[in-house]
Amino acid sequence: MGSHEDGTRRVADLFTPAFLVDFDKVRVNCTKTLAQCTELGVTLRAQTKTHKTIEGAVLQTGGTRRGLVTSTLQEAEFYADSGFDDILFGFPFIPYHMPRAAQLTRRLEKFYVMVDSRVAVDVLVANTPPSGKTWSAFLAVNCGYNREGVWWEASEGEELACLMDKSLSVTFSGVYVHCGNSYGASQPRDIEQVREKTVERLLHLVGRIKARGVACPVVGIGSTPTCSHPTPSMRQLTELHPGNYIFYDVQQMTLGSCKEDDIACCVVTRVIGHYPDRNQLLIDCGFSALTKQGTGQLPSGCCIFRGQPNLKLDKMTQEIGYVDAVKGCLNLEDFPIGCMLFILPWHSCATAAMYPVYYVVEDDAVVAEWRPTRGW
Amino acid sequence: MGSHEDGTRRVADLFTPAFLVDFDKVRVNCTKTLAQCTELGVTLRAQTKTHKTIEGAVLQTGGTRRGLVTSTLQEAEFYADSGFDDILFGFPFIPYHMPRAAQLTRRLEKFYVMVDSRVAVDVLVANTPPSGKTWSAFLAVNCGYNREGVWWEASEGEELACLMDKSLSVTFSGVYVHCGNSYGASQPRDIEQVREKTVERLLHLVGRIKARGVACPVVGIGSTPTCSHPTPSMRQLTELHPGNYIFYDVQQMTLGSCKEDDIACCVVTRVIGHYPDRNQLLIDCGFSALTKQGTGQLPSGCCIFRGQPNLKLDKMTQEIGYVDAVKGCLNLEDFPIGCMLFILPWHSCATAAMYPVYYVVEDDAVVAEWRPTRGW
Repeated sequence: MGSHEDGTRRVADLFTPAFLVDFDKVRVNCTKTLAQCTELGVTLRAQTKTHKTIEGAVLQTGGTRRGLVTSTLQEAEFYADSGFDDILFGFPFIPYHMPRAAQLTRRLEKFYVMVDSRVAVDVLVANTPPSGKTWSAFLAVNCGYNREGVWWEASEGEELACLMDKSLSVTFSGVYVHCGNSYGASQPRDIEQVREKTVERLLHLVGRIKARGVACPVVGIGSTPTCSHPTPSMRQLTELHPGNYIFYDVQQMTLGSCKEDDIACCVVTRVIGHYPDRNQLLIDCGFSALTKQGTGQLPSGCCIFRGQPNLKLDKMTQEIGYVDAVKGCLNLEDFPIGCMLFILPWHSCATAAMYPVYYVVEDDAVVAEWRPTRGW
Repeated sequence: MGSHEDGTRRVADLFTPAFLVDFDKVRVNCTKTLAQCTELGVTLRAQTKTHKTIEGAVLQTGGTRRGLVTSTLQEAEFYADSGFDDILFGFPFIPYHMPRAAQLTRRLEKFYVMVDSRVAVDVLVANTPPSGKTWSAFLAVNCGYNREGVWWEASEGEELACLMDKSLSVTFSGVYVHCGNSYGASQPRDIEQVREKTVERLLHLVGRIKARGVACPVVGIGSTPTCSHPTPSMRQLTELHPGNYIFYDVQQMTLGSCKEDDIACCVVTRVIGHYPDRNQLLIDCGFSALTKQGTGQLPSGCCIFRGQPNLKLDKMTQEIGYVDAVKGCLNLEDFPIGCMLFILPWHSCATAAMYPVYYVVEDDAVVAEWRPTRGW
C-alpha cells in the first residue's frame, strides 16, 4: 500500500478488497445510542460482536471501558487485557467454560455469565468462586425469539433464579433477553410489537421472581432493531444491549433501524474485468470479502453499491464478484478496469468478521487501522 | 485448552468451535492427486486457496515446494517467504497489481500472472521487467464457465497471445482455464461433458495460437470435480490445477468427486443447550464458524454431522447453530450438554477461511497446528 508525499494514506492507495470504517459515522452512532439510553434512564451494555475492536468498544462505552456484552470468551479476554471491566459473556454458559470464566471472575471487578439451564446453575453452585468473589450470573430468557433462554412463562425461570439466590457462591444479577425475532419484521409496526411483547413478558417473569423474594437488579433487552427507536415502555428496563448500531448495515436499513447514510462501514473493491458479451463486470470482492449473506434480498442483490443504484451483486466465488445491471444495460466504460466501487454490506457483523484489519477513514484519508480479535 | 499428563492434547480438550484437519486423509488426498497427474503425464500446479497453509502446500507439492497457483497476491507472497517457487497468481491481473507482481518476479525463479484483457497485456508490455527477467503470463480462457477469461472462440485470444509473444518484456507461458461450471453438474455425466468440452475448446484456441507461430508451452485446466476422475482426453493437457481435493467437502461428495470418508476436515462443536419444547439442540457453531454456504442443500441442512444422520443444521446466528431432527424426534439425552459433534462442511474453502488456526489430528490426538495466511 502506497502513501502520499505528505505521509497521508488515501483510500485510493489501499489494496482491495478492504474493509473501511467511517470514523465520524461510528462516533455519531455510538454517541446517539449512549444519549438514547441516558434519556431512557437505562444503562447501555454494548454488544461487541459486530466489530471486536478495542477502539470500537471505547467509543461504545463513551470512554469508560465499562459495560460490555461479548459473544465469545475470546472477546471477553481481549477486552479484559485492555483494561475493560463490567463484562458479560452473553452466551449460554456450560460447564466447559468454567476455567476461563473463573480466570475472568478473578481478574475483573465485574464479570458475568449467562445461564439458561440447570446444568449451568449446578456447576456454579458446586464450584468455589475465586477468593472474595462470587459467580455473577444473568438468567437468559426466551420471550419468543426461540434461541437460548428459559421460556418466560415456565416456572424454570423463577426456580433457577431462586437456586442462584440461595447459593453463597452465586450472585443472581438479573435477566437478559435477546429479542432477535425483531429481525423477522416486515414493517416498523412488527418491530414495535416484538419490543412491547418482549418487555411485557420479561417484566412478568421479573414479577414472579420478585414474588419469590429474590431481587432482580438488572432487567435488560437487546437487538439493534428494537433499541434503535426507543419507546416509553423501555423505561421499565434497566439495561439495553444492542451492538450492530456501531456500523449498521443494509439489513438494518431495510428494517428501519437506520438510514443508508448512517451505515458506517463498507467494502472497497476494484473492477478487474469487462465482459461486454454478458454486459457484466467482475470485481475483486468474492464471498471471502463480503460473505453471501443477503443474497437475493434486494433488487441490487446482496448489498448496495454506494452511489451506483444500477449495479447488482448477487453471485460470488471465493475472490471474485459478478456485477450486473439492476435494469437495462451497463455502460462498462463508466467503470474502467481498476476503478474502485464501495459496497454497503447486508450484514456488517458477518462482513467485518472476514477482515484482519479495518481501515478507518475520514473523507478519503486513512486515519487509523483497527485490528479485531478473532477465534474463540 | 488443557493437555494430558503425557503432554498429548486431545480433541476433547479443544475450545470449540474448532477446525480439525485429518492428517492421514490430507496426505492420501494429496498423494493420490499427484499420482494421478504423473499417470496422465501432466504437471500438478496445486491451488492453495482452500487451506492457505505452508504445511498443506508442502503436501500438495510432494515436498518440492514447486508449482502452485494462488487466488491472492497475499498467498503468493506468503509462499515466496517460505521458499516456494514456480507460483502463478491465478487471478485476473490488472495494472494496480504491478508493484507487488514486480517484487515477486524479482524474488522468484518463476512467477506468473494471468491476463484476460488488453489493459493487462499493455501494462506488461509497457513496463520494464526486473533485470534478467521477463513478465511471465498465462492467458485466462473462458470455455463456458463465464467468469474471467477471453472467450475461447474469440480472436482476442490469439491476438493477446501474439502481443505478448512479440514483446521482449513478456514471456507468454500458456493458457489457463478454470472450469468452475463443473460445480453446476447434477450428475457425473454432466461433469464429464464439462471436462470434455473444456479440453476440446481450449485445444481449439491453442491450435489457433500455434497457427500464428506462437508457442504455447502450458495448457492447463482446473477445478476439483473435473480433476478427481481423470480421463484419457486430459493427456492432451500439460497441467492441472485443482485445489479443494486437499480437504474435499460435502459439496464435492455430492458432485461425486469424493466419498464422505475422504473429507479431511471438520468443525468440532459442543452442545450448549436442550430445548425440548422445540425438540431442538443449540450448538456453539454459528455462521462465524461454518458460514451459511450449503443452506437448504441437503436433508441434513447445510452440512453433515459425522455419524449422526438424523441431525440437521440449517439455521445459524453468529455464534449459535440450531440443530433439529431430519425425521421424527431427537432424543436430547443422547446429546448431553457439553458433548462434541463433528460437522462436515458444505464448502471447505469457505469454512476454513473462518479460522485463524487448524488443529491437525491423528485419531483423537492433536498433533500439529497449521496457521493459514489471510487477507489480500
